[in-house]
Amino acid sequence: MFRIVLDVMGGDFAPDAVLKGAKLALDSFPEAHLILVGPEKVLQTLPLSKRVDFVFAEEFVRMDESPGEALKKKREATIFKGLELLRDGEGDAFVSAGNSGAVVAGSIFILGRIPGVRRPAIATLLPTLKEPMVLIDAGANVDSKAYDLYQFGLMASLFLETIWGRPNPKIALLSIGEESGKGNQLVKEAHKLFSSSKLNYFGNIEGRDIYKGLVDVVVCDGFIGNICLKLSEGLAETILEMLKNEVKKSYLYLFGMYLSKGALYAFKKRTDWREYGGAPLLGVKGNVIISHGKSDAYAIKNAIKQALEFAKLGLYRKLEIAIKENLLEGEKVVS
Amino acid sequence: MFRIVLDVMGGDFAPDAVLKGAKLALDSFPEAHLILVGPEKVLQTLPLSKRVDFVFAEEFVRMDESPGEALKKKREATIFKGLELLRDGEGDAFVSAGNSGAVVAGSIFILGRIPGVRRPAIATLLPTLKEPMVLIDAGANVDSKAYDLYQFGLMASLFLETIWGRPNPKIALLSIGEESGKGNQLVKEAHKLFSSSKLNYFGNIEGRDIYKGLVDVVVCDGFIGNICLKLSEGLAETILEMLKNEVKKSYLYLFGMYLSKGALYAFKKRTDWREYGGAPLLGVKGNVIISHGKSDAYAIKNAIKQALEFAKLGLYRKLEIAIKENLLEGEKVVS
Repeated sequence: MFRIVLDVMGGDFAPDAVLKGAKLALDSFPEAHLILVGPEKVLQTLPLSKRVDFVFAEEFVRMDESPGEALKKKREATIFKGLELLRDGEGDAFVSAGNSGAVVAGSIFILGRIPGVRRPAIATLLPTLKEPMVLIDAGANVDSKAYDLYQFGLMASLFLETIWGRPNPKIALLSIGEESGKGNQLVKEAHKLFSSSKLNYFGNIEGRDIYKGLVDVVVCDGFIGNICLKLSEGLAETILEMLKNEVKKSYLYLFGMYLSKGALYAFKKRTDWREYGGAPLLGVKGNVIISHGKSDAYAIKNAIKQALEFAKLGLYRKLEIAIKENLLEGEKVVS
Repeated sequence: MFRIVLDVMGGDFAPDAVLKGAKLALDSFPEAHLILVGPEKVLQTLPLSKRVDFVFAEEFVRMDESPGEALKKKREATIFKGLELLRDGEGDAFVSAGNSGAVVAGSIFILGRIPGVRRPAIATLLPTLKEPMVLIDAGANVDSKAYDLYQFGLMASLFLETIWGRPNPKIALLSIGEESGKGNQLVKEAHKLFSSSKLNYFGNIEGRDIYKGLVDVVVCDGFIGNICLKLSEGLAETILEMLKNEVKKSYLYLFGMYLSKGALYAFKKRTDWREYGGAPLLGVKGNVIISHGKSDAYAIKNAIKQALEFAKLGLYRKLEIAIKENLLEGEKVVS
């Protein structure tokens, strides 16, 4: 059995979507034991089960709340209580679709960072024309330093290698041109660090090529990563919306689309972020999965699936060992 | 007649695509007079016409060349020669699909900046679910300051108002959350400048909402703007590619798509960057249009169309007057 701590109040559709997702997960994954963290009023309505524990937490962090403020004033909130359970060895992984800034801040404060890691980062899985790849950082940090970008690349590389068994992952820096001289100050400095490292460094990659599957890892500052991620989601929705508007103009188009609906469905499934469940926060001492704020029950179920996988594989402990072995010269002073 | 100076050697498919585009433009726009700048060997093959002048320039800036280097060593290149013609009053607008960094650097160096403008910026038109909007800066600058972002917003606002007659354009700052506290250091500082200005400031906008048409102008640093632009192009291509791959799996899907092809065509036309031709470089003393590096003849024709429009409306002179009237308190010291 693997014990997954679940933030019942996390996400735009909490607690309903989270509770339904928990039920789906219990039905689908017999090795799952869930620890639900939420208000007594919400949890007491649920049926009792040997595979579920309740931990009461009456407060929760709102989606628009300042993470720093929340950490100061709401230490009894579901996110922080859940992370404390993880720290104390009561659970094997923690899943929240709540305020991601609060999950990041809480993880750093409560679990602590893996020695050597300056800034933990969110590693999001994205579909490409070939294999899925990792975008890191998807929003844990803004105003990163060049050294942070290097560590993001290192962590994502170790993650793919250790956890997924993808050997020697190819890493690229997101920039505005492929040539090594192209980019802002941050990228130019990070480029030097990657070039002189032992990592399988591909060089710069342009926004245009992200989804082509040329590399396994795309590294960027969390401000840009988060914008890219949300832009991609928004654009995909907009494209389908525009297409729908055109199709509606004629019965013939509608009929044609009806015939092709199998293809549309397969496409949608392939690009649906809900299939991926959530993104691990790499660099903290615990298996933390950050799920999309708009998660429905299906997305929560898949996030729990991923949490189970990470718990089984021992994600953070493997990462801890791998990072120790891969610190740059003189890096130990950083931790 | 309006005299459009055209860089014959600009873009991945130059000179062929540019020359074909020039021909299309001459056939479609009777008020166009073209000044083609390119090598003698290329231009001498063309038929003579009263509506076309040739200016020979034997060198050109390669797409991957450093703009600074090129400006130092290749002053006879087509881009710089064309900009000199514009500066000397020999033309009314300049169009290039070449090295955009070299066009920006050359424009600043040869034409000069409009008084008060610290950094010229590329204003790209993007389709949305509603009206098209302007993304600024699309890549003229990296490592912008907060004050630069404010000026980008001001220029784009004046551009939409003066040239397109769109009253009181709504301006947003691209960030990772809608709340005013969200963003990196740069965005937080720029947010204060916009908030205390007279501009119609909407606040932050997330990547997800760019294409929804909530605002008229989205402001960001050129590094991020360029990544967003290229990401959007790449993603749109990838989505269509993935969809095609799914459709190919069955004759029924293929037949369905065939029936709907009118809708697909309309959609493609609506989102095709080639329809927009090019993006003006705002803030320099001249009408400069930067066209996509992958421009084909159709895109070049549309860029010339846009150049004609800007020449007719007197884009840069109107912008010069509007900027003078809209400088912030104490801003004159900047120029």
